[in-house]
Amino acid sequence: MAESKSFKIQRWREGNQQPIEEDATAVEEPLEIRVRGRSIAITMRTPGHDDELAAGFLATENLIHQRRDLTGIAHCRVGEAAISGNILNVFLSPEVEVDFAQLTRHFFTNSSCGLCGRASIESIHQHFPVIDCDATVSPKTLASLPDKLRTAQPTFDQTGGLHAAGIFSLEGHLIVGREDIGRHNAVDKVIGHTFLDQTDLSQCILLVSGRASFEIMQKALAARIPIVAAISAPSSLAVEFATESHQTLAGFLRDEIMNIYAGAQRVRQ
Amino acid sequence: MAESKSFKIQRWREGNQQPIEEDATAVEEPLEIRVRGRSIAITMRTPGHDDELAAGFLATENLIHQRRDLTGIAHCRVGEAAISGNILNVFLSPEVEVDFAQLTRHFFTNSSCGLCGRASIESIHQHFPVIDCDATVSPKTLASLPDKLRTAQPTFDQTGGLHAAGIFSLEGHLIVGREDIGRHNAVDKVIGHTFLDQTDLSQCILLVSGRASFEIMQKALAARIPIVAAISAPSSLAVEFATESHQTLAGFLRDEIMNIYAGAQRVRQ
Repeated sequence: MAESKSFKIQRWREGNQQPIEEDATAVEEPLEIRVRGRSIAITMRTPGHDDELAAGFLATENLIHQRRDLTGIAHCRVGEAAISGNILNVFLSPEVEVDFAQLTRHFFTNSSCGLCGRASIESIHQHFPVIDCDATVSPKTLASLPDKLRTAQPTFDQTGGLHAAGIFSLEGHLIVGREDIGRHNAVDKVIGHTFLDQTDLSQCILLVSGRASFEIMQKALAARIPIVAAISAPSSLAVEFATESHQTLAGFLRDEIMNIYAGAQRVRQ
Repeated sequence: MAESKSFKIQRWREGNQQPIEEDATAVEEPLEIRVRGRSIAITMRTPGHDDELAAGFLATENLIHQRRDLTGIAHCRVGEAAISGNILNVFLSPEVEVDFAQLTRHFFTNSSCGLCGRASIESIHQHFPVIDCDATVSPKTLASLPDKLRTAQPTFDQTGGLHAAGIFSLEGHLIVGREDIGRHNAVDKVIGHTFLDQTDLSQCILLVSGRASFEIMQKALAARIPIVAAISAPSSLAVEFATESHQTLAGFLRDEIMNIYAGAQRVRQ
């Protein structure tokens, strides 16, 4: 039930490679919520207070209305995936009618995104082979990307409320930048742009304005992008996914400092 | 296809009420993506480059693999919801086999979240009545909440990678604070906590560490919370939803300044 997980990272400070050190990331793992034995949602969450998460989810989805509707919440302890603590059984009073069709929330609709991080990663690798390319980028080029992306963010300047994603050449040239209220949508837009243009992404970098999650790394892998950079922090599952997919993942991309969480061999002066 | 939308807001600066002014927010609207006439996803997005969004979504979901798989993308122009430009038809080459069961993305699974912002808001109001309570909060109390929430964010300090949500009394006392990699999960956790404790939320404030989206406002309404505050920007749909639900929505909650986007009568010195 740890809320953070440490990885060995390669840090660059003002263009200088630092000794390998440990850095903590926020834990991201899937939670499957079951009601009356039926899986009703799988959400990527940080473990801890899972009972509250399930109660709040059911209450705000209008499935339960008062405290006595809920008779119990317990982690499932049977089966391999359950041992990780990522399956939660919710027990409702027999009087509660569950209209499963009413559920309006986004959730993974099949099990291919896994019942635990490991199952998830393995099942996705069946769809998308690991990255095998010799692209490299200099730390100086990486550090220059955030400012270039910002020039492609007119609406953020106006509203302060949009995520952005950009695809860059290895030399740091902006190929396309897009904004969206949803981080994954901004990534879909830039990848969609290059798909329509038939741009080869095997020599490109994806930059996201915020954090790097599992979903972003999965999209980059699907698009065959070898290098992903985030202005903010990556999640634990993003780091694990990048490592297993042979992707390069850079985080906390600031002017003078950046952390390489996976595939550090692609960042070279 | 506007990417920002302006609203009249009440701004407070260093505890002083300012004249009403206009402020721009990022547009949030649902997009329904249809493949072969079948709705495969509804995502909340910022309008613009919808064709790229759909192409990138389909490519990263492993439904299409090469440019020629895609024969066309066009907004649906039939029907009321379609006129808003929020339904997109994607045409695939007859050779593409679509395994609908393979889709792994989160999406709204029925139409109750609507085909356009308006349909969505109306259908949700059928489930949850508007807020009718006389709770008020002082701007000074509101301004004090972010620092208090930060004390309940141990993992953010360590990782820089977590969202947080807190529920506060009208006097600014922190009732519960929770962190999560997912913003909606952090909100579910604090609401779930108070649901399990049977706390009356009609005299409470919800604070979120990041942006306020439609989904956050919907959860607050379900939980009967009259006042929602966000440290960062709200979306256009969050403002519209708050207005129609009679919720109070404060954004850009900083030390010396804050913007009230809806329900300004509840913010009083």
